[in-house]
Amino acid sequence: MKNFRDVKILLYGTGAVGSLYGGKLAEAGASVSAVCRSDFNEVSSDGIFIKSVYGDYHFTPVSVVKAGSEYKDKPDFIIVATKCLPEINVAEMIKDSVHPGTSIVLLQNGIDIEPAVAGKFRENEIISGLAFVCAARTGYGRIDHADFGRVVLGTYPCGISEKVKLLVEMFRSVRIPAEAESDIIAARWRKLLWNAPFNPLSVLCGGADTSQMMNDEHVRGLAESIMREVVLVSAAHGHTVAEEFILKNIEDTLKMKPYKTSMLLDYESHRPFEIEAILGNAIRIAELNRISVPHIKTIYALLGILNSSNVEK
Amino acid sequence: MKNFRDVKILLYGTGAVGSLYGGKLAEAGASVSAVCRSDFNEVSSDGIFIKSVYGDYHFTPVSVVKAGSEYKDKPDFIIVATKCLPEINVAEMIKDSVHPGTSIVLLQNGIDIEPAVAGKFRENEIISGLAFVCAARTGYGRIDHADFGRVVLGTYPCGISEKVKLLVEMFRSVRIPAEAESDIIAARWRKLLWNAPFNPLSVLCGGADTSQMMNDEHVRGLAESIMREVVLVSAAHGHTVAEEFILKNIEDTLKMKPYKTSMLLDYESHRPFEIEAILGNAIRIAELNRISVPHIKTIYALLGILNSSNVEK
Repeated sequence: MKNFRDVKILLYGTGAVGSLYGGKLAEAGASVSAVCRSDFNEVSSDGIFIKSVYGDYHFTPVSVVKAGSEYKDKPDFIIVATKCLPEINVAEMIKDSVHPGTSIVLLQNGIDIEPAVAGKFRENEIISGLAFVCAARTGYGRIDHADFGRVVLGTYPCGISEKVKLLVEMFRSVRIPAEAESDIIAARWRKLLWNAPFNPLSVLCGGADTSQMMNDEHVRGLAESIMREVVLVSAAHGHTVAEEFILKNIEDTLKMKPYKTSMLLDYESHRPFEIEAILGNAIRIAELNRISVPHIKTIYALLGILNSSNVEK
Repeated sequence: MKNFRDVKILLYGTGAVGSLYGGKLAEAGASVSAVCRSDFNEVSSDGIFIKSVYGDYHFTPVSVVKAGSEYKDKPDFIIVATKCLPEINVAEMIKDSVHPGTSIVLLQNGIDIEPAVAGKFRENEIISGLAFVCAARTGYGRIDHADFGRVVLGTYPCGISEKVKLLVEMFRSVRIPAEAESDIIAARWRKLLWNAPFNPLSVLCGGADTSQMMNDEHVRGLAESIMREVVLVSAAHGHTVAEEFILKNIEDTLKMKPYKTSMLLDYESHRPFEIEAILGNAIRIAELNRISVPHIKTIYALLGILNSSNVEK
């Protein structure tokens, strides 16, 4: 498999994350196909145009299909880069394309998103991945990659497999900063430490960017309270995020140029939020472990009702 | 003083509450004057038109002045019916019209709003009052009174003075349901039990009426969590609200016809919220007593930043 040209990848989700990383893996030489739904026509006829801080590029999938059952090959990797939403049943969505030896990569946000897939495909390796990237789909087949781009990958629930190393190597061969992480669940908690406060608060503060949130002492205090709860739950879950990451996150956020979170962009475009992946699952883990998370529960309830009224039916 | 015609009242604030009750006290026979600012021209030339479930009426103050210093008489009562906002210094506003024997009636929302006035006028009686009313000013000198109307009055910090009894008697003489309350601070906490959750949540839920809030299980649970915190703080403050009022409030709110809170109306009209009177003071009492109020602190932080960006500068 060391020759990247032999690597077959099937990509689910050609939004910002899927297109950006799928396109880079294709550039690395892999044979990348894509399952598209709403954007099938545009992607199958013109491919995907990516405006990127890494330099603009164009991604033409080897084949574009409407469902996994139409993909006739046996993929080495399935990469799931859809939003993590209750209405998307990932196991059901990918089932016709999973073969013996297929590694399933969940390149998605949130915490505890792997069990539903891992429970269904017990013989397949699950690779859990995080993209630290600021990018958005501006139209079907059109991606705008504005900043960052690091990827962290690990075998679920822990470890670094050969397939993880291969993915990291492929990304690095096209200058994507990629890291293998032996405790990917802990890495998810660390990412949640930022996502749990700032994504929801950006919406609940009436559309605030990071700078507006940080400049309000009460909102900043609230962000810290939410992060303290995330630390407690991560510890109960056995993947403790160090307390010092709270201050580091605050300092890093203060240094960022003012930035609109992805949840705020979703809100403004009337798209559903990843509430369950980012907050709901954390609350469920907290409750199983009898950890009190009142700040998180408050923003969860408010986001839920905002989401229902905001999403176009 | 039993002859109501001898009772001199100076009213600060001719919004919905001030106009409605000032007008009724005038109807009872009292000599009611008003201090007006923004609405001075309209009120001094045409008086105030009140569309009311009690029957429409018109209120012509005996005199309309622009400041307390222009009122040359010695009032038996000063009634403060402005919003309770940090930018309104009540003690400063009324100081030129307070004389020996003047009772100062604070007919305003919130908790712990009396000390700033009581501390300044140590020789004067402070009467604390609550209006349970659904009314709004629709324009200068125009009030729409849609529902309810009960008034509860008590001497601050406790007791029922002769002047409280007189006010109650005057209100009752014009069929306003009025009650004297010997522990008015407890009555304020009981009112806060409803105001603390439902006013803020109606705004934070993106403009939800009572029915929309109650029909969302998470928001309803959040309202209950906020009420439980109010109960704890009221107990620490020495004016315990009975736990059973939580369930009663929930049941009563379920029975109401869908209702937009006053804070939501303020939000929609870009007027400032009474955040400090309703939440900020409760948080300060909680902190003095080392009571944890995470749900209240969360909605306080969110409302604060929404308020800053919402109010027209």
